[in-house]
Amino acid sequence: MAWRSALLIDPVASDDRRGDFADTFRPFDPEQPALRVGDLSAQRGDGIFESLGVIDGHPQEVGAHLDRLVHSARLCDLPTPHLGQWRAAIARVAADAGAGENVMKLLLSRGVEGQPVPTAWITLASAPDNTRSRHEGIDVVTLDRGHALDVPARAPWLQLGAKTLSYAVNMAAIREAHRRGADDAVFVTSDGFVLEAPTATVLLRTGRRFVTPEPSAGILHGTTQLSVFSYLEGRGFDTAYETVPRATLVEADAAWLLSSVRLAAPVTAVDGAPKTVDRALTDEMNAYLLSPRD
Amino acid sequence: MAWRSALLIDPVASDDRRGDFADTFRPFDPEQPALRVGDLSAQRGDGIFESLGVIDGHPQEVGAHLDRLVHSARLCDLPTPHLGQWRAAIARVAADAGAGENVMKLLLSRGVEGQPVPTAWITLASAPDNTRSRHEGIDVVTLDRGHALDVPARAPWLQLGAKTLSYAVNMAAIREAHRRGADDAVFVTSDGFVLEAPTATVLLRTGRRFVTPEPSAGILHGTTQLSVFSYLEGRGFDTAYETVPRATLVEADAAWLLSSVRLAAPVTAVDGAPKTVDRALTDEMNAYLLSPRD
Repeated sequence: MAWRSALLIDPVASDDRRGDFADTFRPFDPEQPALRVGDLSAQRGDGIFESLGVIDGHPQEVGAHLDRLVHSARLCDLPTPHLGQWRAAIARVAADAGAGENVMKLLLSRGVEGQPVPTAWITLASAPDNTRSRHEGIDVVTLDRGHALDVPARAPWLQLGAKTLSYAVNMAAIREAHRRGADDAVFVTSDGFVLEAPTATVLLRTGRRFVTPEPSAGILHGTTQLSVFSYLEGRGFDTAYETVPRATLVEADAAWLLSSVRLAAPVTAVDGAPKTVDRALTDEMNAYLLSPRD
Repeated sequence: MAWRSALLIDPVASDDRRGDFADTFRPFDPEQPALRVGDLSAQRGDGIFESLGVIDGHPQEVGAHLDRLVHSARLCDLPTPHLGQWRAAIARVAADAGAGENVMKLLLSRGVEGQPVPTAWITLASAPDNTRSRHEGIDVVTLDRGHALDVPARAPWLQLGAKTLSYAVNMAAIREAHRRGADDAVFVTSDGFVLEAPTATVLLRTGRRFVTPEPSAGILHGTTQLSVFSYLEGRGFDTAYETVPRATLVEADAAWLLSSVRLAAPVTAVDGAPKTVDRALTDEMNAYLLSPRD
């Protein structure tokens, strides 16, 4: 990973009317210290984020990512992000990208403890080479997320469905998958329904029908999955959000994990049970996902 | 909150034999940037921490806090902290404390992304005035933690029982308690058992018997609770770790929330049902907790 660019942002109120936000941006060197230890991102994982793919200088699905940032802010009682300011900041950072694949992170922290003003920054770095995952696929294991399907709706303080900086469990689940000899994990509820991967959305195919788990079940609404649904619908396939039992993941004709940087990774096995990879369709999906989209 | 001191630490291997760790410490100004944005504490809440009370320059329960730091590191696949190095760092920072009550935070992050070397630091700041909570008490509401009692044992990747920097849910629970007009929250399992408060341990009294929920249920083993048990046993009371149904919290003769900085806060009501406060015993507990302990 090599840094390409980094920008500190002074967040403005969501109804700020200024046309130019240049005076609220401050480029910085990500190799140098930039955050105070009192920042609640570092002290308590108390903030939200988004990761965008940037392809040949074009930031992908900016609208969908900003929609989700606003959604996360609402779930976490954070001030509503100013979309114009964030769009301007994204454009400024993307200008440093150059050719190839990069990953842009948007971060909004609750701020420094005792000073209730959010802190925000954007980083841009080279993306890892995901060719192998896209072409040869990945095998996954299912891991219990610990809660029943109905919990997110009745316990909003658990912030399930917000993309928060409290991401240690997601990283621990990927380590557990590696310990079990797999590439990645898929979270399931304690009562046996498919949720999401630690950093990706699950997509299943049965015949000409593509299904992804209901985002209302306390999971992230995948920005890449939205793009893939739009692509598949354009090709005449049926798409649907559903409550997906674990057995459906195992029995589906094909499965993918979708995310902003790795894009569409076909699943080759679930808990050791092999799955057929539709290589032609996967390649088409990834070609689409590598094309400029807003 | 006013900063008193801050120290960056270069963590050494747990079997390092040097006698003096001064060359691994670097004092810094906590008002200035000290962390890189790539630090996984800030990016993903991926690290662990401890908060100690420091009374008139004496850091309290250092051994119990370091035991728990080691326990959290193991649960999170982090390198084992070197106890001699941490003890030396704690002593150095405590020397800046002066009189009165302060709070010391120990933080161990997984490090900067792509550089698998942990980062670590200690901060010392003035403690908030907790006189009112200790004397007049606090009212609490119970909030569902989202999982059943048996989940932590069978899903270790959820890191329940580790004191991680992914603390956003704990902060959200306290905000939810305030929204409901209460001072603090007590987490209960989905199947109705008492766990812990977002930043404190629950202690219940029934007659001459004091009970706290089993730490094996994916909660923190309270350092202050350990001290209080030792104090109560010295006074001839019975103490026990048990599985505690929510009804027992409501029906107990008295209840407290115990933590390193607020110390023993008597509970005045649970979900609106009033509780009697044993003011004499509470004052005695807090006098004990304010005395120097190791």
